[in-house]
Amino acid sequence: MEVNQFSLPVDALPKKWYNIAPDLPEPLPPPKEPGSGPSRMEFLGRTMVHECLRQEASTDRWIPIPEEIRELYIQAGRPRPLCRAKRLEKLLGLKKVRLYYKREDLSPTGSHKVNTALAQAYYAKQEGYERLTTETGAGQWGTALAYGAALVGLKCTVYWVRSVYNWKADRRALMKMFGAEVFASPSNNTEFGRSLYEKDKNHDGSLGIAISEGLEDALGDEKAVYCLGSVLNHVLMHQTIIGLETKKQFELLGEYPDIMISCLGGGSNFGGFILPFVGDVLTQGKKIKFIAAQSEVAPNLQGEYRYDFADVAETTPLLKMYTLGHKTEMKPIRGDGLRYHGCSPILSYLRNKGYIDTIAYPGDEKRVFETMRLFVEAEGFLPAPESSYGIAKAIEEARKPENAGKVIAFNVSGHGFMDMVGFSDVLGLL
Amino acid sequence: MEVNQFSLPVDALPKKWYNIAPDLPEPLPPPKEPGSGPSRMEFLGRTMVHECLRQEASTDRWIPIPEEIRELYIQAGRPRPLCRAKRLEKLLGLKKVRLYYKREDLSPTGSHKVNTALAQAYYAKQEGYERLTTETGAGQWGTALAYGAALVGLKCTVYWVRSVYNWKADRRALMKMFGAEVFASPSNNTEFGRSLYEKDKNHDGSLGIAISEGLEDALGDEKAVYCLGSVLNHVLMHQTIIGLETKKQFELLGEYPDIMISCLGGGSNFGGFILPFVGDVLTQGKKIKFIAAQSEVAPNLQGEYRYDFADVAETTPLLKMYTLGHKTEMKPIRGDGLRYHGCSPILSYLRNKGYIDTIAYPGDEKRVFETMRLFVEAEGFLPAPESSYGIAKAIEEARKPENAGKVIAFNVSGHGFMDMVGFSDVLGLL
Repeated sequence: MEVNQFSLPVDALPKKWYNIAPDLPEPLPPPKEPGSGPSRMEFLGRTMVHECLRQEASTDRWIPIPEEIRELYIQAGRPRPLCRAKRLEKLLGLKKVRLYYKREDLSPTGSHKVNTALAQAYYAKQEGYERLTTETGAGQWGTALAYGAALVGLKCTVYWVRSVYNWKADRRALMKMFGAEVFASPSNNTEFGRSLYEKDKNHDGSLGIAISEGLEDALGDEKAVYCLGSVLNHVLMHQTIIGLETKKQFELLGEYPDIMISCLGGGSNFGGFILPFVGDVLTQGKKIKFIAAQSEVAPNLQGEYRYDFADVAETTPLLKMYTLGHKTEMKPIRGDGLRYHGCSPILSYLRNKGYIDTIAYPGDEKRVFETMRLFVEAEGFLPAPESSYGIAKAIEEARKPENAGKVIAFNVSGHGFMDMVGFSDVLGLL
Repeated sequence: MEVNQFSLPVDALPKKWYNIAPDLPEPLPPPKEPGSGPSRMEFLGRTMVHECLRQEASTDRWIPIPEEIRELYIQAGRPRPLCRAKRLEKLLGLKKVRLYYKREDLSPTGSHKVNTALAQAYYAKQEGYERLTTETGAGQWGTALAYGAALVGLKCTVYWVRSVYNWKADRRALMKMFGAEVFASPSNNTEFGRSLYEKDKNHDGSLGIAISEGLEDALGDEKAVYCLGSVLNHVLMHQTIIGLETKKQFELLGEYPDIMISCLGGGSNFGGFILPFVGDVLTQGKKIKFIAAQSEVAPNLQGEYRYDFADVAETTPLLKMYTLGHKTEMKPIRGDGLRYHGCSPILSYLRNKGYIDTIAYPGDEKRVFETMRLFVEAEGFLPAPESSYGIAKAIEEARKPENAGKVIAFNVSGHGFMDMVGFSDVLGLL
């Protein structure tokens, strides 16, 4: 019998996250203050979880995962399976390529975001906070943090980019089912939000604006703390649980990837999946091709590598990253989680050194969703719109004659059950 | 570290389904012909999968699961975890009751229905058919059969009760994503459907009407075959994969349930979960209290135990079952999968002999969803509206002082990601 699903026993759940900082060829360019205005670093110190900020700057290679967080990971269904896409290989008529995918879609909120949400919520509770604030774009991060807050017993306030808030009523209901308070952003609830909302009550909003609102809210309430779902070093580090499990699974299979592919917005999914393998490349001379799948509406890896703000209101320190400019407006897409102006400093650094390739797909998303549909037909699982980008790229790579004999791994970062409207519109299903 | 998730290794997936027929105290009352009209048995012989009909009447205790179906089960993510609801126990302040739940919600289409869909699709393909026809009420069965058809390479036609078809656009899109053709029932596509549709183009439809349409469609096309998602013996037998896995998991834990609870519409979820344990009760003198959670709009287990048709058009043979009458109209509910006039003959027989208790919850579903919400808060998973009935009952039983020290097991038969509108309306989330 052919078995294509490889699970890890619960006690094989990794006990440490991997921090790539000490394995980089040189220290990562640190965040810095802009030339004018108040200190952004001091501001972050007052609005974010201290343990997360400590991890952000850590140079320890391995950070122990507290047992309580490991229990929460198990509660959320970890470890997750790695699957050989035998049926997809057959459908594509491939005889020599071996395709593997990791199933983050089995997450209770529908995406990999729970991996850092649970960690951040746990540390926030430890530090005595009573409420978490955050922003969300596609809604996956907001749902994950609402979930994390519910599981550790905290309140949660989500500022949600209005253009997405309006059409994702189901996901909004799910956040509220988990007990969260949800505002369309720009909202009437913060000074910065109000400055935009009063001029235009239908303002579409952006991730950058919503970040500014979440930060301001946390600053004004000493019992509240702000959590960020992507971009930062500690977020990617929490997400390495994905790549670390994948590595163990490949070891048990006696396989090793030649190509690793996933979608990239701010970088937490892509980073979490590849960083433990990038470590091998940097320290053991392994050769892997890493490819980030993006949208032409937000091809941040094709932007400039320079210092920029992470938010529109310029509340954050400057981060050295690939950026389209923090005030750039980007057209909404169905894979809205990919719509962010900048890429995580760690991944930006690796990109700059030539370790990461990128592709940007057209904004109408036809090519992406039509290619992804082959995966649904063969494997039977419905990926999230964002995950579809990585899957489409994996299928395209698998079909290239030069990749015969290669092992291609991709991450299904989330499920698409709550995104049928988007698929329907683009593919004309109804 | 506390581990509350118990997985089985892939090679522990059961190799046989359990058929309870030979373990019943007396032979199950067989289906029979009504007094007038054409032979319904002969009709079924021409419209259904032969291997399924053979299994329907089998008296073998164990039916081997073909390796190809086991591979499909693994592809669909089986075996599925059994979890100890430690967090829920704590939230409820219970110190002595031990709560366990099985996670059928991890199914790729969102419910346990894939367990028989894959088997039926496989056998249909083996017998040379090219298209499957069926009905669906809540939409879970239609999605599962569309999925099964896609995985074995068949076409699929679904007749969907119009009152649900209209508001579940997302699930309709998902069926189409899997390549199925979907009609609102009564439709213009069959003679029986047309007879109702022409009088009222907005006819709400019913499961009984949709069954009649699926059967007529299959009869008119020799390449098509009809599949039923519940009620019949072979369907419940395919679903015993749930209870068989659960039993292995309890064995490994050194536990055994005192009370088993799940929701019941036609009976496939309830039967699949409990029958392997009912076998223990019948043959080994074990004592378990089995409780079916239903809706007051369709409390079929409180109906009459007599011969009745399974469909409105009287196309099927008469089945000896608890029934509300096959022409009874039932008010739509959010847990629409529970809205059926009759209960599976096997479970009806067991109910008649006193082995199965039942509760019916009010049709406004407030009590059910509000109680279920405690499960979401504690365990973090969103159950289907139907599954919520069993969860609510499990929580109510767990709170009873007389159940201190007992082990209560329930099945989360599906997830609720595609049912947020229903939860939202009833709970006032938005």
